[in-house]
Amino acid sequence: MIDGAMQPFALTLDKFLEHAAKWRPTAEVVTAREDGSVARIGYAELKARSQRISAVLAGMGVGVGGRVATLAWNTQAHVEAWYAIMGMGAVCHTLNPRLTAAHLAAMVERSEVGILVAGADLVGLAEQIAGHVPQDLLLLVIDGPAMGDALALEPLIAGASDGYVWGGFDETAPCGLCFTSGTTGAPKGVTYTHRASFLHTMRALQVDTMALSGADAVLTVVPMFHANAWGLPFAAPAVGAKLVLPGRNADGASLAKLILKEGVTVAVGVPTVWLGLLEHVEAAGLELPSLKRIIVGGAPMPPALMARLEERLGVIVQTSWGMTELSPSGVVAAPGDPVRDPALSGRPAVGVDLMVADAEGRPLPQQRNAEGHLHVRGAAVVERYFGETAKATDAEGWFATGDLARIDDDGNLAITGRAKDLIKSGGEWINPAEIEAVVGALPEVSLAAVIGRIDPKWGERPILLVELREPGASDAALLEPLKGRVASWWIPDAIVRLESMPLAATGKIDKLRLRAEYGAGTAT
Amino acid sequence: MIDGAMQPFALTLDKFLEHAAKWRPTAEVVTAREDGSVARIGYAELKARSQRISAVLAGMGVGVGGRVATLAWNTQAHVEAWYAIMGMGAVCHTLNPRLTAAHLAAMVERSEVGILVAGADLVGLAEQIAGHVPQDLLLLVIDGPAMGDALALEPLIAGASDGYVWGGFDETAPCGLCFTSGTTGAPKGVTYTHRASFLHTMRALQVDTMALSGADAVLTVVPMFHANAWGLPFAAPAVGAKLVLPGRNADGASLAKLILKEGVTVAVGVPTVWLGLLEHVEAAGLELPSLKRIIVGGAPMPPALMARLEERLGVIVQTSWGMTELSPSGVVAAPGDPVRDPALSGRPAVGVDLMVADAEGRPLPQQRNAEGHLHVRGAAVVERYFGETAKATDAEGWFATGDLARIDDDGNLAITGRAKDLIKSGGEWINPAEIEAVVGALPEVSLAAVIGRIDPKWGERPILLVELREPGASDAALLEPLKGRVASWWIPDAIVRLESMPLAATGKIDKLRLRAEYGAGTAT
Repeated sequence: MIDGAMQPFALTLDKFLEHAAKWRPTAEVVTAREDGSVARIGYAELKARSQRISAVLAGMGVGVGGRVATLAWNTQAHVEAWYAIMGMGAVCHTLNPRLTAAHLAAMVERSEVGILVAGADLVGLAEQIAGHVPQDLLLLVIDGPAMGDALALEPLIAGASDGYVWGGFDETAPCGLCFTSGTTGAPKGVTYTHRASFLHTMRALQVDTMALSGADAVLTVVPMFHANAWGLPFAAPAVGAKLVLPGRNADGASLAKLILKEGVTVAVGVPTVWLGLLEHVEAAGLELPSLKRIIVGGAPMPPALMARLEERLGVIVQTSWGMTELSPSGVVAAPGDPVRDPALSGRPAVGVDLMVADAEGRPLPQQRNAEGHLHVRGAAVVERYFGETAKATDAEGWFATGDLARIDDDGNLAITGRAKDLIKSGGEWINPAEIEAVVGALPEVSLAAVIGRIDPKWGERPILLVELREPGASDAALLEPLKGRVASWWIPDAIVRLESMPLAATGKIDKLRLRAEYGAGTAT
Repeated sequence: MIDGAMQPFALTLDKFLEHAAKWRPTAEVVTAREDGSVARIGYAELKARSQRISAVLAGMGVGVGGRVATLAWNTQAHVEAWYAIMGMGAVCHTLNPRLTAAHLAAMVERSEVGILVAGADLVGLAEQIAGHVPQDLLLLVIDGPAMGDALALEPLIAGASDGYVWGGFDETAPCGLCFTSGTTGAPKGVTYTHRASFLHTMRALQVDTMALSGADAVLTVVPMFHANAWGLPFAAPAVGAKLVLPGRNADGASLAKLILKEGVTVAVGVPTVWLGLLEHVEAAGLELPSLKRIIVGGAPMPPALMARLEERLGVIVQTSWGMTELSPSGVVAAPGDPVRDPALSGRPAVGVDLMVADAEGRPLPQQRNAEGHLHVRGAAVVERYFGETAKATDAEGWFATGDLARIDDDGNLAITGRAKDLIKSGGEWINPAEIEAVVGALPEVSLAAVIGRIDPKWGERPILLVELREPGASDAALLEPLKGRVASWWIPDAIVRLESMPLAATGKIDKLRLRAEYGAGTAT
């Protein structure tokens, strides 16, 4: 081998906070409190606190490969806990407070977590989880006094020593564990690694993706308990951007106030959050001059909402696509792209590769402008789920996303549906996403879902479930717009009007529940 | 260890061209030819040609760890050769055509290169090198017919098979070898690695550094034979940017023509290149509307030139600092930074860490606003030079750059001089860079250098060497402006007016030669 070498540099996530603490020590992490005030801390101080938490955890026996769960909203204390756990080489298992104690306990049992750190307002849920699991579970309150069975972390931080040294483990070590939302099946655990999340962060910082700068203030509404909050708690300190956290309140008024007060330049979250913001801004007659971009993902972006956001707020809306298994970002529309189409999610950056296949996973001969099953490959894509022996990838290393997609001539990804949501009627496939896109765009409709209902003649037939904005809308008003847009036999056989659409814990429509309640068929 | 895994993804440089070929297949690499025309090729086709060259080289016995040298200007053929060599795991030893055959032969002997690929206009030099080295050296012409001892590559490409598979070696494998310019000592070889250059590229794509986008057209004037052309032949395909290569001509007229014709948005090179462009643009009354940014480095940026470029061309000038040992980028001023000071080179991005030390390498107690010896640490910084057994780093992993620097409160780096250029007069240090900055900014002065001359009383005393723009300038006109700007005992004892300042092969002032000719002292 040729002689000479470059320096070793482990791709571990503690590097981001170390960098921010040294080079942007006073750039802030800001958290909205319940009482309407904010808490703020500079990266240097946050790192010092976080290292003290590592020392506390080490004193409790946590080491490399240890597991600690978090149950918290987007707060400074949660960020401190993340870096404390990950920086010492332990695994941070994030729990979604919107799931039931029984569901969460099942996950905690599987991950063999020994310590659960919880936000003060979630200690009740934490205690319920502890009551459901076979293992001993030490509860720590990260932002409040001791209560019930839970110890307060703050006095322990005060008593801990400074200068705990992070790193020193292999960069392929796991850093996190997140269970999928399970909207279409049993939750699966995705094990995140330092290296994958580091490279994922490098991707997020590129000009043609999330494009974060040290001059940005990033409002992170996407929850930290779900898929790394799209990696923003890594990406913001990596460039020294201000990180603005909404706590538990993501209503329009709360977000508008934070954006104004903290000079937010980039806001990130699911589309419904921005509908709430827009409605508040319009009702209150506000301007949000600092806000330059909104990055959306996690659900299809309604075209009307995108247009209203860009027009009323004067922002660029960047669509994106990802999933828990992708750490989680797949593609993001470039902010500088002159074409901004809500149906397109952007092009892959280097490190992510996409392929459309038939139902058996064979690549379609035509990879452009043909609908197929979306497969993905890359540095931050799952290879094997937590607790499974078989790989989640095929022989060529592709991971089947379960999404249906089309890639256009320019390489832009359009998600066209979920494979599991497809309805088989008379031996032919119906894609409910295409019907939902038409009906969901009607002004009368708030939310629309199409599922298959068992049918003695056709096997399955589509039915439409709607939550209406205007209660009076007739069947014809809802179905007429489909004519000419979808095949006539795709038009739903029935319409069910719901008071409120059931949503899963991540805010997506809960199709599992809809199928259970409405998919069984009718007496004929 | 916790269960589950992310996919493997080796950080090798072939990934960039693979990505561009698949996702930006028609984005172009454009080369200016000697006759004023341009050659253009899309990334997909360039990749196919490059893989055929790998097949040709494999047929000649080149494999992982093999060494191939290149002697060429910035051209498509040179880019093809780079990826062909690096993609197969061989080492690309870039040779500077401005050095003498004897110098180059000494390097080629040390690197044990067996094949030398040369541009058609450099075959004569290649033959001279071959005549100087002990080993057999196969010569290949990459962009012209066979001549003399050199075979033509083009017919071999035509006869080669498609689909050579790149990668498959460890990401820490070496990809390149570059000898330092040796302006202050014997040239040292720096061994680049795939992993380091991959991570270096990720850094270059960040918003606060070189900020390249797929929408950019990047004029790469910085030569490919010197320090990876600052990584641009990696960064451009990594995002699918158009790569515009000037061939051998970097005069103002040639560059202006390329910028206009190819819609160049970002131009990268040493300051003197942009002086030439500016003078041509002013003389010809041109506008360059597509050009948004100029990234400079490799030498101090004259404040007047920076101001004129920004004003006349309407561009943002980004200063930077790096060196061969850093792959080569250290810091780059953020394009969005409202303060653009020619004396500041920017802040480090994550993956680069800076420290100022005393002459013994001990960190200064005050790391901000204090001048010291600059040390650097990071993923793309040399640990051990080619052919050396000792590390180039200290016990804490720091590499001493040999530069003197100051870091301001915001973390911006200001290079204040070269440690080896310091002059010791009466036991006290004089920094020639500070004197050169004042004299060099005078309108009468084209280039200024200060060196130490042996002095029987003081040990050394500074003397000033100038190449004048206006021949008549008096001693007083040159020295008077120093009063009050530097200590009175720093003012040079003598002035030497040179017809033309001697420059080293990289375009920097050749202080080694100045010291040899003028530093020996006078009879007293």
